[in-house]
Amino acid sequence: MARVAISLPRLKTHIETLSTYGRNPAGRGITRSCWSPVHEQARAWLVGKMKEAGLETHVDPAGNTFGRIPGEGAAVLTGSHIDTVPEGGPLDGALGVLAGLECLQTIRQARLSPRRPLAVVAWSDEEGRYGSLFGSRAFTGRLDPAQIPTLRSVDGESLVDAMARAGYDASKVVDARCDPRTLHAYVELHIEQGPHLEAAGLPIGLVEGIVGIRRNRLTFIGEPDHAGTTPMAWRKDAFLAAAEYALKAREHIVRKGSGRSVTNFGRIELAPGVSNIVPARALLLQEMRELDPKILARLDRECLALARTVARRRGLRVAVETLSRNEPARCAPTVMRAVQSACEALRLKYKAMPSGAGHDAQNLARVTDSGMLFIPSRGGRSHRPDEMSDWKAIERGANALLHTLLTLAA
Amino acid sequence: MARVAISLPRLKTHIETLSTYGRNPAGRGITRSCWSPVHEQARAWLVGKMKEAGLETHVDPAGNTFGRIPGEGAAVLTGSHIDTVPEGGPLDGALGVLAGLECLQTIRQARLSPRRPLAVVAWSDEEGRYGSLFGSRAFTGRLDPAQIPTLRSVDGESLVDAMARAGYDASKVVDARCDPRTLHAYVELHIEQGPHLEAAGLPIGLVEGIVGIRRNRLTFIGEPDHAGTTPMAWRKDAFLAAAEYALKAREHIVRKGSGRSVTNFGRIELAPGVSNIVPARALLLQEMRELDPKILARLDRECLALARTVARRRGLRVAVETLSRNEPARCAPTVMRAVQSACEALRLKYKAMPSGAGHDAQNLARVTDSGMLFIPSRGGRSHRPDEMSDWKAIERGANALLHTLLTLAA
Repeated sequence: MARVAISLPRLKTHIETLSTYGRNPAGRGITRSCWSPVHEQARAWLVGKMKEAGLETHVDPAGNTFGRIPGEGAAVLTGSHIDTVPEGGPLDGALGVLAGLECLQTIRQARLSPRRPLAVVAWSDEEGRYGSLFGSRAFTGRLDPAQIPTLRSVDGESLVDAMARAGYDASKVVDARCDPRTLHAYVELHIEQGPHLEAAGLPIGLVEGIVGIRRNRLTFIGEPDHAGTTPMAWRKDAFLAAAEYALKAREHIVRKGSGRSVTNFGRIELAPGVSNIVPARALLLQEMRELDPKILARLDRECLALARTVARRRGLRVAVETLSRNEPARCAPTVMRAVQSACEALRLKYKAMPSGAGHDAQNLARVTDSGMLFIPSRGGRSHRPDEMSDWKAIERGANALLHTLLTLAA
Repeated sequence: MARVAISLPRLKTHIETLSTYGRNPAGRGITRSCWSPVHEQARAWLVGKMKEAGLETHVDPAGNTFGRIPGEGAAVLTGSHIDTVPEGGPLDGALGVLAGLECLQTIRQARLSPRRPLAVVAWSDEEGRYGSLFGSRAFTGRLDPAQIPTLRSVDGESLVDAMARAGYDASKVVDARCDPRTLHAYVELHIEQGPHLEAAGLPIGLVEGIVGIRRNRLTFIGEPDHAGTTPMAWRKDAFLAAAEYALKAREHIVRKGSGRSVTNFGRIELAPGVSNIVPARALLLQEMRELDPKILARLDRECLALARTVARRRGLRVAVETLSRNEPARCAPTVMRAVQSACEALRLKYKAMPSGAGHDAQNLARVTDSGMLFIPSRGGRSHRPDEMSDWKAIERGANALLHTLLTLAA
């Protein structure tokens, strides 16, 4: 049986063309920050390609960019984002948008008529130059309007100014909120951004859910003693307490977590921060990720107890602040089943896995049936210039997405 | 026998008066940075008090301030410094200068006639606002003239500008270099800045030497992996390597050092330094102090080997840079014997001990017989507003200094 399939040459051309927007000289990857001039040029190019594909286009007040095939009832959405991290690669986000466009273009050209409306969307500022997962938060009503005037990039530009330069009115962002009754399902294709699929030699990852993330700031409080004259045994060294805690918390999470639980200490600051004074304060940033909300909450509690034990044994105090708390988002069984049946029809092996990274799909999960599928990342790399997958893997992933969409929209 | 003795009321008045120069409002100690207007006012006050005591005064091109009783042959010097750390206390430096002044005033008033010239000196910028032990380095020829235009305070003011504001020409600093043949000995009274004397209930510390200090910067180099998607076992986390190294190096120095060897990790910086990326680089500042130069060199080598072992076992690299290397300075036996005989004459118990902090006496040791004596620091505290000793302890220390000077100048 001749099965409908996407055009890899066309998809490859689109990926390669989009990657020229924001490509840095001297091989330092692609920098396409949301609302930047080059991002807006890329958006205009995308809208043009959507129109060429015969889609109805629409950009909402949050800058989310849609291309649509009309139909009956609630819509099936697919997509991702076209912004990148600084010095990022060509696939994170771009793959999901351009594969979605390719699927819709294939469906139209093949004169297939799925019942439901189908749309591909590029969500704004997924990478969080101003606010992480910004566009999908606006769309799903998870953006606090009071926060909008306060959002700034690390280099200090306000979101309000950046949107104004791009022709948008930040005070209208809340109008991007969707009516959940108009949505049937959301499915997003993405590179894995990790090494599991490549290591297992599998073409597709069936995403079970997106991990929850806890970000805590631990402050160990000791004494700023003279580093020459204070006997070693008398010191209350906040750095050594933080160091002991970090090593033990890492072991605890590896041994007592789900087996897939992860943690990271991305930042530490010592005060007073000079060579000849014992650190009196150590501010340690800890992140924990886990798909099972019960395990995540337990690890969080256990790490807090561990921090207190380490501090007490060393004669220090510790204060713990929660900086953010994203609960895990389970993928919808309907979407997972549609991905599975697409893989089976295409004879693609897959494995169920969590997403260790955050994605717009976690916001969509609040308003509709949401899910994801992954293709392998070469070397597990992402957010860097050499982020890649194989073109064969991209073709397989786009075809799996195509058949998932056809199932969901039937 | 009526023994000559200093006047505690006069010394106390001088210490209390000097402590008003730079006293911060709201109890935040004393800030009297070298060359600052308040430091220059304190210097003028000190010169006035030296003149009142009948001393010949002289300020050299490095700002070292001398008060002198003439005599025959090479001189006996005593002193310390009148600058403070930011938010420091009333005794660090001030004690040695004002007790020295008190000793010389007592000697003149008692019409004693030691053979040798005697001088009290306040060395410039001991605390290193621009350059640590600046005045005594200039005096002992240990200041590189090429370095002078580059010296800046942490808030960015150049030494050249700060000296010009105080009426000094920085290009003339090298002219402060002494002729060693004019020097017989140097002895400095200081608070211990540590807890040993108070803990032992002893009034005097006979300083055996000033510890050597190594300052190294260790850079652990790993990989900036995604903190959500990279399996824990695959990570090459530079922070965890630095944490493991610091804990192990601390244990090594405590167990395999002299028993008095100390180390400190005052600063660590991670790159890229964000919550969701595994630290790819950790820059760790390590300081080691030890009186025995062989033990110091051995600990330095062993820590380097330990850092390499930790890095290799974790699949990382480590680079080690030596930032500074001050060799230990032994106190001169002649000065130590003079302190001992003064203590014995005054029936003051003492213990031999190293100085864990740096002092101008270590520079003087390069050009003459140099030594120090300590009095207890209350609670071992220094470099903070509540830095103190007891007035009785100050009186004992000043009298021990007086008799040490009389012995050395005889």
